[in-house]
This record gives sequence, structure tokens and C-alpha cells, in this order.
Amino acid sequence: MIKHLLSAADLDAATATRVLDTAEEMASLAAREVKKLPTLRGRTVVNLFYEDSTRTRISFEAAAKRLSADVINFSAKGSSVSKGESLKDTALTLQAMGADAVVIRHPASGAPHRLANWVEGSVVNAGDGTHEHPTQALLDAYTMRSRLKRLAGLNVVIVGDVLHSRVARSNVQLLHTLGAKVTLVAPPTLLPVGVGSWPASTSYDLDAVVPDADVVMMLRVQRERMNQAYFPSEREYSRRYGFDVPRMRRLPEHAIVMHPGPMNRGMEIAPEVADSARSTIVEQVANGVSVRMAVLYLLLGGKS
Amino acid sequence: MIKHLLSAADLDAATATRVLDTAEEMASLAAREVKKLPTLRGRTVVNLFYEDSTRTRISFEAAAKRLSADVINFSAKGSSVSKGESLKDTALTLQAMGADAVVIRHPASGAPHRLANWVEGSVVNAGDGTHEHPTQALLDAYTMRSRLKRLAGLNVVIVGDVLHSRVARSNVQLLHTLGAKVTLVAPPTLLPVGVGSWPASTSYDLDAVVPDADVVMMLRVQRERMNQAYFPSEREYSRRYGFDVPRMRRLPEHAIVMHPGPMNRGMEIAPEVADSARSTIVEQVANGVSVRMAVLYLLLGGKS
Amino acid sequence: MIKHLLSAADLDAATATRVLDTAEEMASLAAREVKKLPTLRGRTVVNLFYEDSTRTRISFEAAAKRLSADVINFSAKGSSVSKGESLKDTALTLQAMGADAVVIRHPASGAPHRLANWVEGSVVNAGDGTHEHPTQALLDAYTMRSRLKRLAGLNVVIVGDVLHSRVARSNVQLLHTLGAKVTLVAPPTLLPVGVGSWPASTSYDLDAVVPDADVVMMLRVQRERMNQAYFPSEREYSRRYGFDVPRMRRLPEHAIVMHPGPMNRGMEIAPEVADSARSTIVEQVANGVSVRMAVLYLLLGGKS
Repeated sequence: MIKHLLSAADLDAATATRVLDTAEEMASLAAREVKKLPTLRGRTVVNLFYEDSTRTRISFEAAAKRLSADVINFSAKGSSVSKGESLKDTALTLQAMGADAVVIRHPASGAPHRLANWVEGSVVNAGDGTHEHPTQALLDAYTMRSRLKRLAGLNVVIVGDVLHSRVARSNVQLLHTLGAKVTLVAPPTLLPVGVGSWPASTSYDLDAVVPDADVVMMLRVQRERMNQAYFPSEREYSRRYGFDVPRMRRLPEHAIVMHPGPMNRGMEIAPEVADSARSTIVEQVANGVSVRMAVLYLLLGGKS
Repeated sequence: MIKHLLSAADLDAATATRVLDTAEEMASLAAREVKKLPTLRGRTVVNLFYEDSTRTRISFEAAAKRLSADVINFSAKGSSVSKGESLKDTALTLQAMGADAVVIRHPASGAPHRLANWVEGSVVNAGDGTHEHPTQALLDAYTMRSRLKRLAGLNVVIVGDVLHSRVARSNVQLLHTLGAKVTLVAPPTLLPVGVGSWPASTSYDLDAVVPDADVVMMLRVQRERMNQAYFPSEREYSRRYGFDVPRMRRLPEHAIVMHPGPMNRGMEIAPEVADSARSTIVEQVANGVSVRMAVLYLLLGGKS
Repeated sequence: MIKHLLSAADLDAATATRVLDTAEEMASLAAREVKKLPTLRGRTVVNLFYEDSTRTRISFEAAAKRLSADVINFSAKGSSVSKGESLKDTALTLQAMGADAVVIRHPASGAPHRLANWVEGSVVNAGDGTHEHPTQALLDAYTMRSRLKRLAGLNVVIVGDVLHSRVARSNVQLLHTLGAKVTLVAPPTLLPVGVGSWPASTSYDLDAVVPDADVVMMLRVQRERMNQAYFPSEREYSRRYGFDVPRMRRLPEHAIVMHPGPMNRGMEIAPEVADSARSTIVEQVANGVSVRMAVLYLLLGGKS
């Protein structure tokens, strides 16, 4: 097994599948009311969050606690540490305090990779800048596999602000590894330079790709970006790239609609879609805990 | 047993008494140094706080931890969730993460009731707007019963800003259910419209009701309300509705003085009263942990 | 054993040595992968922090959790409690909630002493104003003893803003008790009035004392103080009182360089020094957890 989880690219098909299979076991234990496993008793997991992200933090916290680990939450915001202490010195401090794993959310792309050079424990990337969010990609893959019974050959359409989306980057990587075909749909200004070299096709036209999609994954619109020059008007965006009921009706019968949350209902996704039976949004959250349990278990479990 | 605790009105006399009896057992175990019970091992209690309330949050946290539950604190303030995500989506997220109980403090009256429609787990109202705070009423009833050996027939005088007080609302409900008689004492501008239909009498004259009181419960004055037009001057308020030593001397010998805390010493209560043997203020805090243990135990304990 | 740890002066040589010996046992258990001890199971440790100090808070939190205590974090900043509730009422509240120990960080010198008058549980001073920080002194003494195999007779040089440093005050006390000789080095404006009565010598000249030092302890420069009239210019400070490579070369071969962290690299300490083999900065952090485990164990362990 790998030591850190920094990027979806760290996972080859066998390892990624092992994470998904382990997550399935975790979910099946929970379904049988086995909610607390002793596996990581005595281990310390530090949630090192340089950005607010309550959802991701509590998902990792719940996962670690179900494995009986001790969890220490370290919000760098407003801490003396954030005032001038380097990431390296923070890393060495956590290391010295006996952190067996550090789950890091950081606004700078690449911060988790640097952290991994400095600590002996495992590092899990919980989102770094616009770069990667590998556990999100794993929980998305888990959700697709659980609903559609396969990943290889699936047509996955990812829609929205790909330029700034770590969720999109990690999903493209992992889905490619697992044999799915990805189409990125966005206005030209929201596609990154160099997207041509990604293992994915691109399109500006959501309606053109909907009829063949097995999965439509809507990206969250960051409200602070809506007033930027590169961003279409809210109305235009919603009309061309929002997922509404007419578009949902043109999906194949078995297709699902995903969203990493939190949603802007009425903006990138219509409330009727979000609440429909095709929507996996709530399942994704539940699967997130199982997948993070699996990741912590596989990274740390073998050491005791 | 009930599934949620949203309002003191959810509790009939038998259920309320069962909570108080269970709390008494919890307190008696703690007194015998049995501080940790395995009852809720593997259960997850989420403290979902949309308002700062460190006291209430740590009281629930201590109660849940003594029952061996895992506790996740979710302060909505400053979280990405608070920026635009609906309460419903937050509820579904917590549900999906496996929350067995959600303890919610919210500035909007009725929020816990809405939450209870969306989640499978139990919801405990830890204060919603000016509406209710049922565990406060339970700990107050527990404290009266513990000091005065009964509730039925007690004369309870509640003094202060009844208009904005969830503590008053929940106490009136619960004390009525348990057979006590409540008198609300406040200036006319601090009594709610429709108070005439509450199961309580009202008075503007504290001195008139003191000689017959078994219990005087002082409400906290919110400093931000003191400058409002409906609020008497600070001096006037303190003179007419503050509980001072002369008033304490006119109480029957057995009577007690309560306050939900935190106190404005010198405003609604004189320091000598707060620190006197009649004061139950510190006991109320201790009883709060026992009562919240009882509530969590009765709501969740039967499910495993 | 003592009941509280408020000041390094609370510790006589025998008690201080017992803390260091116990910390050594804790460290040796951790090295043998015994990471979780059941000693404080059922005990509640409250971290009551009136100032941000993530490092110190998580060090105590990790220590308490390794001893199986329940930990409740209470950040007074922004809490309703901080708005007007007296420290005494907060103390009585924590007491009533069953706190077995309160670890307090407070901007006012003497606050932990006042707290200790009001609660039955143990109080640990985690830093009060410019007054004391006794667990820092203990972890520093532990680190010196561990590296240099003795404390009696050591020449310890403490450099920097002694005037505002609780770390310096606690170290002077404890090192004197344990038989080390302390020299305080600072510009005249950063030495406190009355330093002549401390059990330590003083000097304005770092270069003069370096060749005889067994230990050089650099104090952290608080950036907000750099613009004050009493503070030398940044450049002047760094040139005269910063620890750089030439100074490190003039140390005796066995001498070590300490810093309580977080460091201002390039200001009071050069990066090459901080990362050298003489530097104990990371060890100090690790030793901090062991020492705090020892303190909590000795204060609380005997009661159950």
C-alpha cells in the first residue's frame, strides 16, 4: 500500500480498487451496526486545515473516530502558527507531537506534497488550492460503482468551473486509471490551458453530451468567482451549464447526477434535480466517510 | 420514549419524570466515581451550533462523552456551510455522515422542528431563537425537585425579559405539565402578546409575589437589548426587577433563587444573592450535565 | 504531589525531578508503541484558552488523550462567556460540569492562581500574561537533561525579550531549583526592573557568554513589539542578539540551542542554526507531550 495519499495519480488501478473494496467492507460493517472498530486505537490523526471546510473536516473526523483513532483538529486560521510560522515548522511540530497521520487542507497547490517530505507519518491531501482532492475522487468513484456496478467504460460528464476545480482534476486522473471516459463541459474561459493533454475530452455544449452520459457530475460554482471577467453572467451560466429538469429528462434512464456539495440550488443544479432519485448527493456524503475510513485504515492500519 | 426533544411540550408528565429520574441515576453514578458509561459507544452526537454558546455546547459535549459517544462539534459560524447552504442540505449531510443525534442551537425559532423532518436520527433543541430550550427547563425542574423534594404545587416566579426568553417559554410549559404554578414578572413591554393564554399568571410587581415564592428564577438580561426602546433604563430595571438582598430576605425560608447563567452580577441579580446558600446557580450547571446525559440516553440508548 | 501547577516555583527539586522521571517513562512507553494508557479514563480535562495558542493547546490535548481522558476545548474568544462573565463564574461552571483539571491560558498574569481558589479540580497554568509558563520550563529542563545528562551546574544562557517572557521567568525559577546557573542576555530595555533580585546573572553581550554556555535558549520575538520604542531596530536586534552560524561555532562542542517555538527564522535564530544537530527545537515539542502527560498523571492519577 502507498504511504501518503497526495494525488489521485498516486493510485494505480489495483490500489484504487483496494480502497474501494475496503470502503465497501466499512460500509457493510456500519450497516450491520458495527460502528466502532478498534483498528486505529492509540493512533493520532491531525486535521490541519488552513481553509474552512467543515464538511470535509467532519467527514475525516467521523472516519477516524469510527476507527478509534484520537483526532486533533488544528485550524490554522487565526492560530499563532499561521502568523509567520512556515509550513515546515508546523509539520515538524505535528510530527514531534506524535501525529500518525496529517489530513491537510491548504489554499496552496502542492502544500501536501511538501508536507510529506518533512514528516514520518502519513499525509492525506484533503484539497490543495485548485490542484487535487483525491478522497473526493475516490468517494465519487465508489458512488458510481455502487450505483452502476462498474467503472470501466462509463461515460462521465463533468460540468462547470474546471479551471479552478480540484475535484475535476482528481476525478479525471482516477477515472482514467479505472477505465472510465471523461468529458469536461465548460465555457472556454473556465477550461484550463493545457486541458488538451488531460486524459479527457472537452465540450462547450452540455446538451450535446447529455444523451450519452452515464454520469453527470456538476461542479460547485464559487460565488466569489461569479463577478470575475472570465465568468459568464449568472443567468447565462445557469442557462447553458446548469443542470435542470429538461436536461435530466434527456439523460439515459440509468444515468446518475452527482455534486460534491455544498450545492447552490438554482444555480448549477435545479432543486428538482438535486432531490430526484437520480441524484447521489447524499449518498456521496455517506460514501465519503466509508472511503476515508478505508484510506486511513490502509495508510495506518498496517503499522501497529 | 419520544424520538426528538424539540419542545418542553413534547414531554408529558410521565416522560418528563422519567428524564428526571434517569438524570438522578446519572448523578448518583457520578457521585460514586462512575464517570464513564459505555452506553453510547459507537454512537455519534453532532453539536450543530449556529450561535456561539460555549456553555451549552460543552454541557452536551461532556454529557455525550461520559456516555462514551463520539462527539463532533460543528460551528456553522464561518463555515462554508453557513454561506448559502440550506439547513436542509446541512441536515442531510449530517444524516449521511451517520449522526445518531444532532444537538442544534439556532437563531431561528422552529429550526430544530424543521431539522427533525429531514433526519433519521434524534434531534435535541439546544435553544432556537426566542422559542424554546427544553433541556434548560428539565435541568431547572431537576434542581427544584432536588432542593425542594417536589414540583407539584410549587410557586415558581420567573422574572425578567420574558418576551425574548426561550428559557421562560420552556419552563412555563414543563412546570405546568409537572403541576407547579408559575408567575411571570416583568415590565409590560417585556411580556409577550398573548401571554394571557399561557398556563401562568403575570405580575408587574416583583415585591408583591416574593413572600409566597418557593422558587425565584431570574432571567438573563441581554446587554444588546438594554438600549432598545422597549427596555427600561438599566437603573430602573435593576431597581424594580433585580433580585437584591432585601428581596431575598422577604422570601420564605426554604425558597431558592435560580439563574440560567451567565449572570450579569449587579444587574438582574446582586452578587450577595448569587453567592448565597439559596442560590442554585452552580448546581444548575452540574444538573445540566446529568439531565443531558439522561436525554441522550433515553433518546438513543434503546436503539443499539 | 502538588495539586495545581501554577508556577515553576511550586516545584521543589524532588517534585520537579519526579515530573521529569515520569515524563521519561511516558516517552519510553511511547517509543515501545504503547501510545494509549488507561490511567485517566473517565476524567475530564478542559482546555480553557483566553488566547489563541494552537501549539500549546494541542500538546495538552494530545497528552490528555494518550492518558484516555476526555478533552473539552473551550476557547473563550468569541464565546458568550468572554462577554462579561467573570473568570470566577466561568470557573464555577467548569467545576460544576465535572472538570477534573482545567488547563488555562490567559492574557492576565495571575489568572490561573485566582482560578485555583475557586475550583476543586487541578489547575495547570499554560501561560499567563508575561508571568509564567511552567510546563514549558519543565519540557526545557527535560530536554537539557536528556541531551546533557545532568542539570546541576549547567550554564544556561537565555537570550531575548526577557521583559515580556513567561518562558524566561519559569525557566529561571525551575533551573535555579534544579541547580543550573542562568545568564539572561538582552538589551537593557528588554530586561525587567528588579531582575537583579532574580536567581540569575545578566549581560548585554551575547558574544561574551557564548563560549561558556552549555545551553543557549533563544526567546521568540513578538512581531507586534518590534515597532515599540523600547525595542531595538529589527536589524540591530538580529545583529546583536540573533543566534547565527558564527556564534554557534563559538559554542562548546557539546552545547545545545533551544527555542520554545514558533520561530522567526532569520530574526532571533538563523535557519542553519535551527536545522543543525545542536538544535533541540523539534525534540522540545515531542518532550512537551511527555512532560504534560507526566503533569496530568501526577496531578490527577492518584485520585481514582
